[in-house]
Amino acid sequence: MPELRKDPIIGRWVIISTERAKRPEAFRKYPNVKKGGFCPFCEGNESHTPSEILAYRPNSSARNGTGWTLRVVSNKYPALMIEGDLGRVGMGIYDHMNGVGAHEVIIESPRHEDTLSQMSTNQINDIFWAFRDRILDLQNDKRFRYILIFKNEGEPAGASLEHTHSQLIALPIIPKRMIEELDGSQSYFNYKERCIFCDIIRQDISDGDRIIDENEEFISLIPFAPRFPFETWILPKRHNSRFESAQKNELESLSKILKRILMKIDKVLEYPPYNLVLHSSPFSIPSDDYYHWHIELMPKLTHVAGFEWGTGFYINPTPPEEAAEFLRSASIT
Amino acid sequence: MPELRKDPIIGRWVIISTERAKRPEAFRKYPNVKKGGFCPFCEGNESHTPSEILAYRPNSSARNGTGWTLRVVSNKYPALMIEGDLGRVGMGIYDHMNGVGAHEVIIESPRHEDTLSQMSTNQINDIFWAFRDRILDLQNDKRFRYILIFKNEGEPAGASLEHTHSQLIALPIIPKRMIEELDGSQSYFNYKERCIFCDIIRQDISDGDRIIDENEEFISLIPFAPRFPFETWILPKRHNSRFESAQKNELESLSKILKRILMKIDKVLEYPPYNLVLHSSPFSIPSDDYYHWHIELMPKLTHVAGFEWGTGFYINPTPPEEAAEFLRSASIT
Repeated sequence: MPELRKDPIIGRWVIISTERAKRPEAFRKYPNVKKGGFCPFCEGNESHTPSEILAYRPNSSARNGTGWTLRVVSNKYPALMIEGDLGRVGMGIYDHMNGVGAHEVIIESPRHEDTLSQMSTNQINDIFWAFRDRILDLQNDKRFRYILIFKNEGEPAGASLEHTHSQLIALPIIPKRMIEELDGSQSYFNYKERCIFCDIIRQDISDGDRIIDENEEFISLIPFAPRFPFETWILPKRHNSRFESAQKNELESLSKILKRILMKIDKVLEYPPYNLVLHSSPFSIPSDDYYHWHIELMPKLTHVAGFEWGTGFYINPTPPEEAAEFLRSASIT
Repeated sequence: MPELRKDPIIGRWVIISTERAKRPEAFRKYPNVKKGGFCPFCEGNESHTPSEILAYRPNSSARNGTGWTLRVVSNKYPALMIEGDLGRVGMGIYDHMNGVGAHEVIIESPRHEDTLSQMSTNQINDIFWAFRDRILDLQNDKRFRYILIFKNEGEPAGASLEHTHSQLIALPIIPKRMIEELDGSQSYFNYKERCIFCDIIRQDISDGDRIIDENEEFISLIPFAPRFPFETWILPKRHNSRFESAQKNELESLSKILKRILMKIDKVLEYPPYNLVLHSSPFSIPSDDYYHWHIELMPKLTHVAGFEWGTGFYINPTPPEEAAEFLRSASIT
């Protein structure tokens, strides 16, 4: 059983993942993503993954067989386990909890050669619908407090398989980063009676120099204080705290703007590895007034080093306005 | 002039380092550490660094010439600039400050082939004395609120030059991570009237299974909730909030225990890259009762990925008690 542990000093939780415990020799070389070779996520290899939780099968093909366009399965090496109760206990000064949670993989395409930036907006739209379907289902499990969805693209960004996929982790706690975002946006709302994200959109449209792209429903921009070079946020223009209550036309617009920004990043930075994270309000917290869901996209270009670990803040070598200009002017066709 | 910028949502500061602004092409390949070739940190190449701020010269050799055993110089590509005032301004909803600060390099040896783990404890002791000398000097500059000292060893851990060195950054703000540590340890003190670090040392000695090594004045252990596999802390047994008030015999003991832990890590993990960070109380905050200085040492073995960026917490694949056992039982001679 994996464990959740809480640092007694700053309150940060850690998953001790006993199910995939590594011995020192496993760290002696960086694992290489297999180029070609056997891939459990490819169509035809369905028996090599855990049984499917959800699949889109346009021709009503049989469960766990071929003929799908998107498939959701449990992670074969989960960081958290779906069975069991939380078992909160204190151990002297330390707090301990069982590592209960869901860890799922969204296989975004049956084809090994597909990458998100080159897929059609319809295919990308299906991925967002799968996110929505899984969130709505997992919200029924009362043990969970937060559902995180993210994508690691490329080995330096943490992907262990190169076949295009996203991951979902349902957690029995609200993570530190989300609490910080909720606290910050709530304080702002209490003071100004406005959503801080709505104010960011308004000011950044007015300033203009951090905007990359926009359409009817979404805007993409480099934030004012990005941690990383070319860090990009995609925000809905309509105030809404939760991704899962986005409307059908919004998900279509989101698919379009995401494809465009990924193509621009691929063009400017030549297919960098990246992390993409969906930020949405926990369903257990009434934050409709002050929180605003969005996507954060971070190309993996620099190493996090002693300075960042020691301070919790970041040295970013590219001014955001310059990064935005590079991406804004990148032509894609 | 580089800038400090504050994320308006969670309050995290970022340095926008215009002085070493990078264009996109700089990110298209990971920079490789030069193996051999010209090194500005080697003895004889003193004219290729900024003028020295401090040097240990046992035979009283001339400033900026050969004959030194340790040398401190300004970073040639500083993240912060020593000249100027803070210039705090608001820009609509955003907060902005000039990037004023010191960024120094401690060149730990004149010899390119030295690595910290193989240096004598006397040499290591000199490095700690240099840290102390620089902290005491920079505390006189009233613009600074915090002095961070850290070491990046190896290119994957962020080192851009392979010649053994540490870095010092004096900041006009107290970083988020330090505020969290101070707040957490102060809350604990207010409730229990004891230092939480002292309680950790007491409980971990009693539990036994996370201890790696100890001597008269120091203990090294894997913390209860480490972010990374084989993350190691070194703590003084005597309660003391600030590194710079450590006594002479303590610095000697620290040098010995650090050399031993680095040798153990090199043995078990085969010379991994790592980050080492000194955690010490800001001189501007009266935290003598509740804070406890220490060193955090993080071998760079895993990639930080979407999950960590989205949550602010970490998946650690090695239980701390197992990591401690590997290091405890590693024989070094």
